[in-house]
Amino acid sequence: MAFFWPVRVYYEDTDSGGVVYHSNYVSFMERARTEYLRAKGISQAQLINEHQLLFAVRHVSAEYIRPARFDELLAIKTEIQAHNRLSLQFRQEVYRVKEDDAQRLPGWQLTIDDNNLLCEGLVKVVALDSQTMQPKRMPQELVEEMTA
Amino acid sequence: MAFFWPVRVYYEDTDSGGVVYHSNYVSFMERARTEYLRAKGISQAQLINEHQLLFAVRHVSAEYIRPARFDELLAIKTEIQAHNRLSLQFRQEVYRVKEDDAQRLPGWQLTIDDNNLLCEGLVKVVALDSQTMQPKRMPQELVEEMTA
Amino acid sequence: MAFFWPVRVYYEDTDSGGVVYHSNYVSFMERARTEYLRAKGISQAQLINEHQLLFAVRHVSAEYIRPARFDELLAIKTEIQAHNRLSLQFRQEVYRVKEDDAQRLPGWQLTIDDNNLLCEGLVKVVALDSQTMQPKRMPQELVEEMTA
Amino acid sequence: MAFFWPVRVYYEDTDSGGVVYHSNYVSFMERARTEYLRAKGISQAQLINEHQLLFAVRHVSAEYIRPARFDELLAIKTEIQAHNRLSLQFRQEVYRVKEDDAQRLPGWQLTIDDNNLLCEGLVKVVALDSQTMQPKRMPQELVEEMTA
Repeated sequence: MAFFWPVRVYYEDTDSGGVVYHSNYVSFMERARTEYLRAKGISQAQLINEHQLLFAVRHVSAEYIRPARFDELLAIKTEIQAHNRLSLQFRQEVYRVKEDDAQRLPGWQLTIDDNNLLCEGLVKVVALDSQTMQPKRMPQELVEEMTA
Repeated sequence: MAFFWPVRVYYEDTDSGGVVYHSNYVSFMERARTEYLRAKGISQAQLINEHQLLFAVRHVSAEYIRPARFDELLAIKTEIQAHNRLSLQFRQEVYRVKEDDAQRLPGWQLTIDDNNLLCEGLVKVVALDSQTMQPKRMPQELVEEMTA
Repeated sequence: MAFFWPVRVYYEDTDSGGVVYHSNYVSFMERARTEYLRAKGISQAQLINEHQLLFAVRHVSAEYIRPARFDELLAIKTEIQAHNRLSLQFRQEVYRVKEDDAQRLPGWQLTIDDNNLLCEGLVKVVALDSQTMQPKRMPQELVEEMTA
Repeated sequence: MAFFWPVRVYYEDTDSGGVVYHSNYVSFMERARTEYLRAKGISQAQLINEHQLLFAVRHVSAEYIRPARFDELLAIKTEIQAHNRLSLQFRQEVYRVKEDDAQRLPGWQLTIDDNNLLCEGLVKVVALDSQTMQPKRMPQELVEEMTA
């Protein structure tokens, strides 16, 4: 079952080309990953405080297909595509949604329309020790919670 | 003698209204305060590392007079209007400048034109202990360097 | 009855001081004004398309009282303090809220706690013709909808 | 001969992990592309006004190797790797530089050190008609100027 997170486009997200500025999609995708983890019961603030564990982005690739505009409502589909105890690879898709679909987000199995696919992203994050910033193995239970 | 710092307007700074997004001027003004201090020989990174001293913004007021647009060159005039050992009050003005004036920035006594005044700001920053985040008196020599 | 809009603090909103970067509150307040208007049935995208009417920020003043941190949930109280057919003056307050209060947002009369007041803002916006960027009187009905 | 553009890291660019927020590198790379074109005598504002031509980002891929921190000085190496009349593919590298190297930027053949390579990016931009947002062939002379 896919996880969707809504993002509203505000003025701050757009540029003078009239569309959402390209690097903001990369930030939107991070919001959605944070909420994906929260929906699994995982708070990143807690991971730092209790496990001294931080995620850092190692790789981003984004394909821009259609532009989003001011005031539109987007939904970001997020899934873990691959993982081990040192890293997670996310696949994320940004869709434009209709206002009435917004009621059903998040968690609802949104009927998405490929004509409304705006951006596809692949993001690899690695687990780091929040003090030393060195790679750190995630506890097995944590990995299971994330990928459940 | 006034201190000017140049800022180029990139797509990331604009919004779909075709102009620079209003809260970005507040960020531009912080860049200029950082460079004002650097020009006085003060690195904020060093203040944290060596003096455990951090500046936090306590108050901002900004008057928006004319819009800036994509690709324009701005110059931010920065001066300290009032100070004590706990806080600094900056007065900052954002001007649009011509390309050939850019050669003379920073440090040059730019002939500014009130028709090109885009934004006026007043910003109060306070000195904090970077560990406790409590108010901390600045060393007298530091205050003198800043306001020299 | 007050209008509250929730804002989650993501990594993109924080800075290396460990707190929300000061100009981001100014952006958060704009998100909340947009949602305040939407709650009154007013879409800014429609105002541009159908009425050639755009809001521009003329003045911002913000008092920073306590810092917000990564992953916290904020609620922004928004009310119109003064208005005429050319401009609106908003008073906005940013509060930190508890997770379980989040369920009640927006629209719910949140019991807010002054110890959780993070930032107070006053924002004046003016109505402009979206083509000429000149001041434009708002239709009386629109002003009534906004301030109802 | 490589083109380098300096970027100073300000508070706005960092996050509470203490490092530059990952999507800001994507924005830094766009600043550098804009300045690469300006150094070739090409203003994007002019391209829109005179040629009704706009660049849109179609694909970004970024590899994050080492973090940048507050107050550091970065230099972004920018080159066109492939091109035709509809699109340009840029290769960009973000380096940390020493203060005294900054004097030599931009344009100077900076002696860069692979230990200071922070981020590698590939960015594909396409030319669009700024009115219709449909693909538009660039004039041959423009392509030659860009890739000279």
